[in-house]
Order: sequence, then structure tokens, then C-alpha cells
Amino acid sequence: MVEPFADYINTGEWSKKSIKEAKKYCTVNVAATSEATGFTSIPKSDTWKLDPNAAYVHICSNETIGGVQYHSAPNVGEVPLVADMSSDILSRPIDVSKYGLIYAGAQKNMGPSGLTVTIVRDDLIGQALPITPSAFDYKQQADNDSMFNTPPTYAIYIAGLVFQWLKKQGGLKAIEAHNRKKAGLIYDYLDNTTFYSSPVAREDRSLMNVPFKLKNEALDEAFLKGAKELNMLQLKGHRSVGGMRASIYNAMSIEGVEVLVGYMKDFEKKNG
Amino acid sequence: MVEPFADYINTGEWSKKSIKEAKKYCTVNVAATSEATGFTSIPKSDTWKLDPNAAYVHICSNETIGGVQYHSAPNVGEVPLVADMSSDILSRPIDVSKYGLIYAGAQKNMGPSGLTVTIVRDDLIGQALPITPSAFDYKQQADNDSMFNTPPTYAIYIAGLVFQWLKKQGGLKAIEAHNRKKAGLIYDYLDNTTFYSSPVAREDRSLMNVPFKLKNEALDEAFLKGAKELNMLQLKGHRSVGGMRASIYNAMSIEGVEVLVGYMKDFEKKNG
Repeated sequence: MVEPFADYINTGEWSKKSIKEAKKYCTVNVAATSEATGFTSIPKSDTWKLDPNAAYVHICSNETIGGVQYHSAPNVGEVPLVADMSSDILSRPIDVSKYGLIYAGAQKNMGPSGLTVTIVRDDLIGQALPITPSAFDYKQQADNDSMFNTPPTYAIYIAGLVFQWLKKQGGLKAIEAHNRKKAGLIYDYLDNTTFYSSPVAREDRSLMNVPFKLKNEALDEAFLKGAKELNMLQLKGHRSVGGMRASIYNAMSIEGVEVLVGYMKDFEKKNG
Repeated sequence: MVEPFADYINTGEWSKKSIKEAKKYCTVNVAATSEATGFTSIPKSDTWKLDPNAAYVHICSNETIGGVQYHSAPNVGEVPLVADMSSDILSRPIDVSKYGLIYAGAQKNMGPSGLTVTIVRDDLIGQALPITPSAFDYKQQADNDSMFNTPPTYAIYIAGLVFQWLKKQGGLKAIEAHNRKKAGLIYDYLDNTTFYSSPVAREDRSLMNVPFKLKNEALDEAFLKGAKELNMLQLKGHRSVGGMRASIYNAMSIEGVEVLVGYMKDFEKKNG
């Protein structure tokens, strides 16, 4: 009997955390990684060293720190595709049939933290390792209508309100258009100035998290200070990449992004 | 090297669930059980077959279904005492120093479901099995101020409001007096009628969950129907024990219990 193993695609900090965790339970084969280029792109899927005998292929559909995002489900053949969609679920329509398993923490686009949604293909249910905690055993959860233990009722209630809000916005197609418009406002500006820059490969840019850099890093603190005065918080990039990062999840309005881009232009005028 | 094992005290449904789960990770020695008498009492601690080499002794401090409760921490010598306090934490003062580990879901006396509190003795941190999910590894949680992953922020906020409410009530001593008064109203009545009875040994009766039986089970449905008309819901006992059960957690008022006892008396008058 061959030791079970899984293929992982490493596109950043969240992929790395998943790989580290998975190594407790199986052999991990990193089938592709963009670590060498600082996680500024997603490895082209035709370069992935996938093994048809892998138990599954794992991706993180959106990396919040590096700001890279899959814009379609990669083709991984017959092997089940597993996706951590914590930071972009509900930001756009997805073809669920292309995935074996989707999991996502609620706290970005779905509701309060403390709730995780999993969507598991029927035939993948019932294969838990004997050491799996019962609450994480999809068969036990499915057999109990996701109420094996007392579920986080209030978080589920709030998620229900968010689903209703999404429907009122026009559903996932409408929210995707909304998100494309917001991200486009920032990326278009970044591509037409030398004062700021986007470190991410154009085709892999995230619609949720937009990292950008000031050409002159010495101005970073002044940029953040001015943003704070306009009530724009949390714009500092993660310490592992530096620079700035605009997180523009579903709840961020177009007006909010317009204020940011307006501020960026003003700051450039004053300091450029 | 001896296989690690743990001593468990089986006092009902929640103990049984813990035993079942623990068997995935170690050998379980059931050092005492009240199963033979239908979990209507807690085995006297001087009859427990404890092993001084056990990794820990596990108890469930309050069994919601059977309605038995420890009224003090049992003496288990040098072995760490581990307690599932999900259904009676914050209902009374406890001497935390007598426990190696306390864990409790928030949903009874602390706040919304989806939050679990653990209190771990410093020297017991850092002994997780390699297969422990990182979020359940107390060392990783302690090293990250309980924010290894995004914590359930809203549930923590509500728990904070409950802690403030408890302080306003006079703290845990006052809430214990309140709980004793409530439970006393029901138990005193149960002990002075033959129409109803308490199945639980007097010294082990829970202050949180009061199971009781009608002498004539044929009246059960009528009792529940009348209670419902007075907006008293969820009085039906768990199917494994039958009869009735009044759950009177911290949030239940004395007036609420008085209405219940008044109804019980009326019902006895009409049907006794």
C-alpha cells in the first residue's frame, strides 16, 4: 500500500499554512510554487507537477497578503480539487462541480468570524482518518445536518442576512461586476503612474486584496498618516511584503475605493 | 514505554461522548460509572479506581440530561483533573487551582454558541500530540494570545457583556445563591409530593437541569401542552430518560421558576 499523499500549490502565506498543517496527516508534494518570485503570481497550471495518484490537489483561491487570485478553477484531471476560499467565496459565481471540496471561513465575505462553511462532493464524504475529531468528520456532520455539535447559531443567522443582502444586490454576478469595478479603479491607476506600482502579475491580480508600493518607501509613513486622517485604516501591507494593501471585500463600496484612489492621486501630486 | 492512558468518570451522556472521542487518541480507563443505576447519581469518589499513572482524570461537572452535578472538585491526588464545565461554568465560584484543565462551550451560561473557553495549567501546555490540529494546540494558542487563527470576535464580545452582567448581579457568589434558590423551589416541591418525583440522588442533584417525572406517565402530554400554553417550552425530558426537565441556567429568573412550580401545583390539583 502506497502512503497517501496530496499535491499542494504554493501561492503564498495561506498556502504555506495549509501545507504545514497537512504535513501532520499525510505526505505533501508541492506540485508548484511561486515562492522564488515572492508569490507575485500563480504558477501556470501547465507547469504543475501533478501526480494522478494524489488524494487531492489543494489550492488557496485568493492570497490576502500577496494579492494573487485564481480567476478560474484549474484543470486537475480526475483528482479532487480542494480549495481554501476563505477570502474570496461569494465574491463571484463559481462552478462548484469543478471542486471536490471547498472550505471557507466566513469572516471576509460571509459573516462574523467563528463560522466555517464546507462544500464536499458526496463521494468524498466518509473517508476521514480514525484520528479525525468528530466535529471535523464530514460524514458525522452530514448525518447530523451539520449539527453534530451545537452550531454557531448567531453567526449562521448573520450569514443568512448576508445571503439575503447579496441577493438584493443582484446575486453573485452583480457582486462580481461590483468587485471588478472597484479593483479596476485601483489597478488602472497603478498601471498609469510611476509613483506607485503593483507587484503582482496582471493576470493573477486579486479582486479582493490590492497590494501596492510607493516608489519612494520613505514616504510610506506619511501616506499612512494622511490616509488615517481620512478614516482609511489598515492600509499598511503585511510585514512580510511591506508597502500598502487595500482590502476591498464585498462590503467595500465603490465610493470607498474612489476616496482611496482620490487620496492616492492627491498624495502623488503633493509628493511626486 | 507504557501506552498513555486516561481515567474517565462516566456520569451520563456527555461523559460518554467524551470517552468515545478520547478513545481516538489514548487508552481510556473508565475508573467509575453510574451507568448501572441509569446515571441518577455520581459514583462516590472513594470508590473510583484511579491509577496514579494516568495522564489525567476526566469528569463532566454537570450532566444536562441526567441532571447530576459535582458539588465540589473531587480529590484525584497528583493526577491533573480535567473537567468539561460546558453546562455549569459561571454558575458558582470554583477553585480553579484544583483543576489541570477546564473547558466549556459558551452556550449555556457564557454567551452564544460557537465559542469555547479553556483554562489550562501552565505546566500542561506544550504536550500536544503531533497530530493535534494547530488551533487545538494550547501552546500555539497561548503563544498567540488565543488568536492563532481569527477568533470568534462577536461571540467574545457578547461573552464580555455577560461577564459585566454577572458582575452587576454580584458576581459568582450571588449567582450561586440565585441558582440555589431557583433549584430549591423545584426540588423542595418534588420532595413533598407523590404526584411528581426526582430520579436523582439528593446529594448529586444539578442546580442547572432538574429532571422530574410524573407518577402517571399518561399525563405527560397534557402536562407539556398546558406548560406550552403558559409559554414554558422545552420541558420535555431527553428521549433517553423520558419525563420532564427544567433547565434553569443563570439567565432564568426566580419568577420564571415560580411560574413553573405554580403550574406544577395547579396541574397536580386538577389531575392528582
